[in-house]
Amino acid sequence: MARLYHVPLSPFCRKVRLTLGEKRVEVELIEERYWDPSQDFMRRNPAGKVPILRYNGTHMSESQAICEYLDESIPTPPLVPKSPEDRYEMRRLCTWFDDKFHTEVTANLVYERVNKKISGQGYPDSTRIKTGSTRIKFHLDYMDWLLGKRRWLAGNEMTLADFTAAAHLSCLDYINDVDWKRSSTVHEWYAKIKSRPAFRTLLADQIPGFPPPAHYADLDF
Amino acid sequence: MARLYHVPLSPFCRKVRLTLGEKRVEVELIEERYWDPSQDFMRRNPAGKVPILRYNGTHMSESQAICEYLDESIPTPPLVPKSPEDRYEMRRLCTWFDDKFHTEVTANLVYERVNKKISGQGYPDSTRIKTGSTRIKFHLDYMDWLLGKRRWLAGNEMTLADFTAAAHLSCLDYINDVDWKRSSTVHEWYAKIKSRPAFRTLLADQIPGFPPPAHYADLDF
Repeated sequence: MARLYHVPLSPFCRKVRLTLGEKRVEVELIEERYWDPSQDFMRRNPAGKVPILRYNGTHMSESQAICEYLDESIPTPPLVPKSPEDRYEMRRLCTWFDDKFHTEVTANLVYERVNKKISGQGYPDSTRIKTGSTRIKFHLDYMDWLLGKRRWLAGNEMTLADFTAAAHLSCLDYINDVDWKRSSTVHEWYAKIKSRPAFRTLLADQIPGFPPPAHYADLDF
Repeated sequence: MARLYHVPLSPFCRKVRLTLGEKRVEVELIEERYWDPSQDFMRRNPAGKVPILRYNGTHMSESQAICEYLDESIPTPPLVPKSPEDRYEMRRLCTWFDDKFHTEVTANLVYERVNKKISGQGYPDSTRIKTGSTRIKFHLDYMDWLLGKRRWLAGNEMTLADFTAAAHLSCLDYINDVDWKRSSTVHEWYAKIKSRPAFRTLLADQIPGFPPPAHYADLDF
């Protein structure tokens, strides 16, 4: 069976979990203490990061590379579009969320509020929290604009770009940092993706000391 | 004609320049003052980053997405392998260099020594320079290990992984921060890639106030 070394509130791990779920790959989840990596963990991935997927006897790292590999080796259902133009747009948006959104929002909110406490690095920095809370509005508006032109973020089919964005937003929703009232379009998009069977494992996550808000696991939020 | 908004010592811009060169796409280069973005620049790319490629009437951003698009739309010569396993390894290594190598080495050396001065942000931070100088050794050793098993970084064919690594190393070589004596294997690999016609434009770069060392443009370095 596949095995994923992960951290529950890591958007990169969640993106791989969503892709595995959508491709119906059964996976054993092993939680890693990434802030205190064991020798075994470093041996599995010299980059010292989660997620690590053990699959077909090898250890794989880097979420985007893993997800594109899973899509290429298990073609159904497709999560990468066909045309070069649509594939470009999907990859551009995956990087938008994993790089820009991650730096401006996820790192400032999730890592400050949760990871810092769990790893014993002290209290959240209020300047960073404020930056994250301001920047998320810009990103929700950008998603609203994209979804005004298309059914899904990168086009009219659901792709890895949707999973990437949903992976980040689901971590933020766990700590109640998403204002779903800001855009009914984004709210509807998230409701669609949240109701997929692949999402169930994410909705069942429980971080000790950080109970999620009631709406987190509610499909009718 | 294609037009690339770029910064000469940006590894992300260099990776796109190498890919365009290899695919024989003629391109007009426009230097951007990324630290003082114009309204026009922000309109072309809301992420506010270089490179931006104007191609077939649209503005494209994110170097990896651009390079994979160029490979898919101009198949010769191929820069992405065929099998899902080889493609995974290529993408993993592209991220290794654009993320881990970039944070640990390029940002600590090139951005500290050059970008800070050009953008008027003061003097290099000696702690960061020291970290970069230490970490580059680890990465050269990792490349030596990979190239001990394969002809190119991601396998026996040249791929975007080689261009990604060479883009970073060429920026570091411009400021004389690569110890080519550390690994004859890495030296030979770089000599092969440096002698490709696509590399010529990079070797002709001149940053005012930062003359490159004599060996930078020398194919027999």
